[in-house]
Amino acid sequence: MLTVFGSIAYDTIRTPTKVVRNALGGAATYAAISASFFVKPGLIGVVGQDFPKSYQNILDRFVDTRGVVHAKGKTFRYDGSYDSTLSLRTTNKTELNVLGDFKPVVPEEYRKSEFVYLANNDPVQNTRIIKEFDNVKFSMCDTIDFWISSKRNDVIKMMGSVDSVVINDEEAKLLTKTHNLIKAAKKIMEWGTKYVIIKKGEHGSLLFYEDTIFPSPAFSMEDIVDPTGAGDSFAGGMIGYLSSKNSTKISTIREAAVYGNIMGSFAVEKYGVYGITGLKRPDIKKRFGRYKKMVHF
Amino acid sequence: MLTVFGSIAYDTIRTPTKVVRNALGGAATYAAISASFFVKPGLIGVVGQDFPKSYQNILDRFVDTRGVVHAKGKTFRYDGSYDSTLSLRTTNKTELNVLGDFKPVVPEEYRKSEFVYLANNDPVQNTRIIKEFDNVKFSMCDTIDFWISSKRNDVIKMMGSVDSVVINDEEAKLLTKTHNLIKAAKKIMEWGTKYVIIKKGEHGSLLFYEDTIFPSPAFSMEDIVDPTGAGDSFAGGMIGYLSSKNSTKISTIREAAVYGNIMGSFAVEKYGVYGITGLKRPDIKKRFGRYKKMVHF
Repeated sequence: MLTVFGSIAYDTIRTPTKVVRNALGGAATYAAISASFFVKPGLIGVVGQDFPKSYQNILDRFVDTRGVVHAKGKTFRYDGSYDSTLSLRTTNKTELNVLGDFKPVVPEEYRKSEFVYLANNDPVQNTRIIKEFDNVKFSMCDTIDFWISSKRNDVIKMMGSVDSVVINDEEAKLLTKTHNLIKAAKKIMEWGTKYVIIKKGEHGSLLFYEDTIFPSPAFSMEDIVDPTGAGDSFAGGMIGYLSSKNSTKISTIREAAVYGNIMGSFAVEKYGVYGITGLKRPDIKKRFGRYKKMVHF
Repeated sequence: MLTVFGSIAYDTIRTPTKVVRNALGGAATYAAISASFFVKPGLIGVVGQDFPKSYQNILDRFVDTRGVVHAKGKTFRYDGSYDSTLSLRTTNKTELNVLGDFKPVVPEEYRKSEFVYLANNDPVQNTRIIKEFDNVKFSMCDTIDFWISSKRNDVIKMMGSVDSVVINDEEAKLLTKTHNLIKAAKKIMEWGTKYVIIKKGEHGSLLFYEDTIFPSPAFSMEDIVDPTGAGDSFAGGMIGYLSSKNSTKISTIREAAVYGNIMGSFAVEKYGVYGITGLKRPDIKKRFGRYKKMVHF
């Protein structure tokens, strides 16, 4: 089984061509829905009383929501704007709301999960919650600049407590204080994790383990609509695929990184979660096949 | 046969750790030496009376220099500084010297070349000189921001007169006025060239033809010493490999793009041309094999 822990949000997304208000969002939402095309993931998170039935229905359609707590107050809100290239995002506002006091607990039914994804949560919380699982075969965490700047030592500790770290290129540089991504990955591995996956947006990803690097270009996209959630969809697709294979063989992990890229490429094709919620499994398989042909030489 | 036309220079390279003055450089120097590991290229260029015997010896060791004119005056000089990440270069000074009045002529012995590489020269000169070849099977040109800013229409005309364009990502965006590299490549192809190769530095390259994209990640490097000439070595390696196969089959062109990446990765390992002049053919073959294993999934 796979468990995903992280934020469920109302997102306001501003691109040069459109503003979408109060869309279903959040790192865990994207990751869990993305993973759901490979396995049915359990989701741990919190929503407020304002969380509408329609969004609850979307979650229920894709994931096991027994771990989603309905708390008094308003759902976490995020508001961000993209620049004209859709590659730089500025945060306009974050309202923690119910997320602020959330004390996540792993439901009994999720404790035996072999695969666990900890999204970009408070690193102290991630480090604590991973210990509540009894049977972890492969754990993965993400982080963001906010935690790197405010709780760097806790981020480092968290990274030593999981099997793999998935992180953006710019955040990997910020965290490790180096410009070279290979040096950055090596440093993160020194902190105790076995695998580092650096996400490079339109340039794909780099998977590091031992002395090996597996670069995987992005599935090239001419029309990007909304990059929100691409990284979370990457992580969800990657660990979802691994979980479906119930394997941590390196050849499977390499394939999983490619599935991560594929899921990220779907995520950016529409606003909000609609790039991935409209998918069928054969769409993913087909794009994986096209990808394989694309990179062949 | 392959002919390379472009600049031969004295380079002053300033990195945060070292300054190298009056090193042998120039786009055509890098491209021709890189290509020489696949075929013996003919070189068209000009040097001044100050060009030392030692540099002439390096050129003679790798290329056919019957097309190199020794003119009255000083050799072309370039002086540039890299930032701390080695990814941004600022031009401190350019002295055209003998390059200013150079009227390139294709030597009789080179006219039958099936493969022609026109480096980042004046686009008007490139468009004129390609017509002096009788038997071209595959021509390729590069350009730089200087020509895009000063002679954009001539750059566009040049691109329509060759089979393929190799260009940096930033320059492709500047030239086509778009941020998306797929849109940029399509626009360049509309101007009449069949293949576009966009070089993305540490992120590798994208080869475009018809409706197809072949992304090829860079051979990942932990220690980059000097990026000077990496793009020219890429282009030289690519067209050198094609010329050695005497083929323009698409499968060969894809392999050639990988060889381009490989040659670029060697170029950055040492200052100046020494990253490639010290190579032996088996080194290249070996790295190509490692690359193939690296990207496999």
